Amino acid sequence: MKNKMLACDKGRMEDKIVTFSKFGDAGHGGITRFSLSEADLQARAEVCKRMKALGGDIVTDDMGNIYATFKGSENLPHIVMASHTDSVRNGGNYDGILGVMTAMEVAETIVTEKISHRHPVTVMVWTNEEGSLYPPAMMSSGVITGKFDKSAMLASKNPEGKTFGEALKESGYEGDKSKRLNPKDYMAMLELHIEQGPVLEAEKKDIGVVAGVVGMVNYRIRTYGQSDHAGTTPMKYRKDALLAAASAIKYLHKELDKLDSNLVYTTGEILCHPCVHTVIPDLIDFSLDARHQDPEVIKQVVKVIENIPKELDKCRVESELQWARNTIAFNAEMVNFVEKNAQEYGYPNMRIYSGAGHDAQFAAEMLPTTMIFVPSKDGHSHCEPEFTSVENCWKGANVLLQTVLDIDKK
Amino acid sequence: MKNKMLACDKGRMEDKIVTFSKFGDAGHGGITRFSLSEADLQARAEVCKRMKALGGDIVTDDMGNIYATFKGSENLPHIVMASHTDSVRNGGNYDGILGVMTAMEVAETIVTEKISHRHPVTVMVWTNEEGSLYPPAMMSSGVITGKFDKSAMLASKNPEGKTFGEALKESGYEGDKSKRLNPKDYMAMLELHIEQGPVLEAEKKDIGVVAGVVGMVNYRIRTYGQSDHAGTTPMKYRKDALLAAASAIKYLHKELDKLDSNLVYTTGEILCHPCVHTVIPDLIDFSLDARHQDPEVIKQVVKVIENIPKELDKCRVESELQWARNTIAFNAEMVNFVEKNAQEYGYPNMRIYSGAGHDAQFAAEMLPTTMIFVPSKDGHSHCEPEFTSVENCWKGANVLLQTVLDIDKK
Repeated sequence: MKNKMLACDKGRMEDKIVTFSKFGDAGHGGITRFSLSEADLQARAEVCKRMKALGGDIVTDDMGNIYATFKGSENLPHIVMASHTDSVRNGGNYDGILGVMTAMEVAETIVTEKISHRHPVTVMVWTNEEGSLYPPAMMSSGVITGKFDKSAMLASKNPEGKTFGEALKESGYEGDKSKRLNPKDYMAMLELHIEQGPVLEAEKKDIGVVAGVVGMVNYRIRTYGQSDHAGTTPMKYRKDALLAAASAIKYLHKELDKLDSNLVYTTGEILCHPCVHTVIPDLIDFSLDARHQDPEVIKQVVKVIENIPKELDKCRVESELQWARNTIAFNAEMVNFVEKNAQEYGYPNMRIYSGAGHDAQFAAEMLPTTMIFVPSKDGHSHCEPEFTSVENCWKGANVLLQTVLDIDKK
Repeated sequence: MKNKMLACDKGRMEDKIVTFSKFGDAGHGGITRFSLSEADLQARAEVCKRMKALGGDIVTDDMGNIYATFKGSENLPHIVMASHTDSVRNGGNYDGILGVMTAMEVAETIVTEKISHRHPVTVMVWTNEEGSLYPPAMMSSGVITGKFDKSAMLASKNPEGKTFGEALKESGYEGDKSKRLNPKDYMAMLELHIEQGPVLEAEKKDIGVVAGVVGMVNYRIRTYGQSDHAGTTPMKYRKDALLAAASAIKYLHKELDKLDSNLVYTTGEILCHPCVHTVIPDLIDFSLDARHQDPEVIKQVVKVIENIPKELDKCRVESELQWARNTIAFNAEMVNFVEKNAQEYGYPNMRIYSGAGHDAQFAAEMLPTTMIFVPSKDGHSHCEPEFTSVENCWKGANVLLQTVLDIDKK
């Protein structure tokens, strides 16, 4: 670190991690904190309490997104640091919330150290990034950027039949549409996040300079067999949809492994019908999610999937594209600021693409945006072993702080 | 057919099939008739109404099994023809109920043709053979033969939390324990059933002379990986439990296909955790059911399963035996009667082992028992396309009738 570089407070950083890990604590090292649940309302209240105590001005918009703003010396558009407080089921203590905690820590450093800034600085909480209880994921950034229809989102139901709209009303966080993040009142958005992968740790880097979010395709692949009795149908007469699905999965791995080594692809969901141990399955339906920053590689993936044999093990095989997204590039100047700052603090860093989706990818279409990654221990995320050391969180906060100040000086 | 051989009535047989197909009609060619459901109570009432009209004496035992008895000329142990009225979800119009309908048709022929018989002849309905709503399958024969604990069975719950005991009380069919099928009051049991497989049809046989029920083993196989984010975890760092399960399934097929060609084995159930399209699965849990009449082949199966590689695709693999049953041989004299009668009627026939479990396999441990199979179109069963022609049902009823009379003459 150069002499006299600004720094956040490591002890305060740790206090925040300990405090927020309590909201939704599932009792074995992680949390379940669905958006607008009791646990999430506790986390939100804690954010508001702390920001108000620091002198922040708090408003919410019509999706319940929270904006805590600290005035600048001039009447200029805001610089916003945003992330989310909600988690997946049995998630960890860092995904989402670390972006909120580091934003709070940056604001706290600016206020307590009386660091002058021209632009207002805003700490923002996105509502329902995970979409765990009320799908889809990235709900609020999707609505604000016009990707998702708001009334459809309000009608999204949890498994008990309660709508997101009802939960939002009950939460007390529903505000006015005029308060939404927008390109007139906001000049830039920053999101700090855990990497959610093992690359930074493996490469011994403290900071991931996120250049963008990789493009992806999402397919459903189905094999169709014939349901018959497990005890009475000779093997040669069978059409076993699960055997066909096993063959299809092995085939896809063999073919996709021939493509670029940075390609990632996953079958995370598999459904079986009728799923009875004495009945040969007549339908297997599984997901295939594939991601790569180069659209040419994604094209090759599509070709592999769409050229899967029409029949495997006497079963019909079909694939259906569910959705796709193009690679998003973040704002080049802001990416350069992040890189320069990591460098100046002396933190080993590397450029990286985000494989996961983030609210920042939607925001990027509206205003200059970038992200900062910190390492995930063993690459784990969306699970309880998720871990990033206080040291690494603090380093991320420092880079975030300095990048806000660089943008402020533009 | 020899001159003057006795025969059931084909028209009455068809009427029974049409009538019973209405109880639980799911509207697309099959039925859902869970034991003691409204639809099953309709079917039971129809059996009782018809048997009473023919002069049958009806009692029930403490498991709700129904016995409709037609007196013989002497006070001797009964000959019982038994099957079940319940079905699986979206089952067909023959599994179980055909054994009841042919038993009724045999009784009706004996009564209306005034065929003399020394022993009482009983038409019996077993309660909850499928165990679809209240597991396990073959519940009542299991209780009567001491395989299952009655109080545990009464406590078996449907998905809504209602117990089998409550349903039994409400049904009005709960009778006295003293009325149970037993080896003192009953001399022999016969069960006619559809084959539930394609062999008789493929071999162009009308009657399957069932020599016994094949032995089986039931395993759970589990692969353990690591849940990580689908978008951020490079392929080389992954432990994908589903890829390992696909490899395990392919491995088992390759190895088990080397064993005897009469072996059947099935993975009908596969569970995935967490089963989210953006998360690499950390646990796959699947069933393996394998059946063969020769215990030596079953031993080879066990060896294959237990020698599955301990690690596949970097995931730990485990197998666990759930339960096993030995091959059951039916009563040789009764098997011979069935074969002789099929022969004398001029019906093409073959000896066959049952791959499926039936109440008869439990009853066989208590009193002389055998089964008669009729063909299943395309081998389908436990599904709506299940079909056996009226002609074939009638031929089966004729063999059943003559076999009852042969036993009566012993």
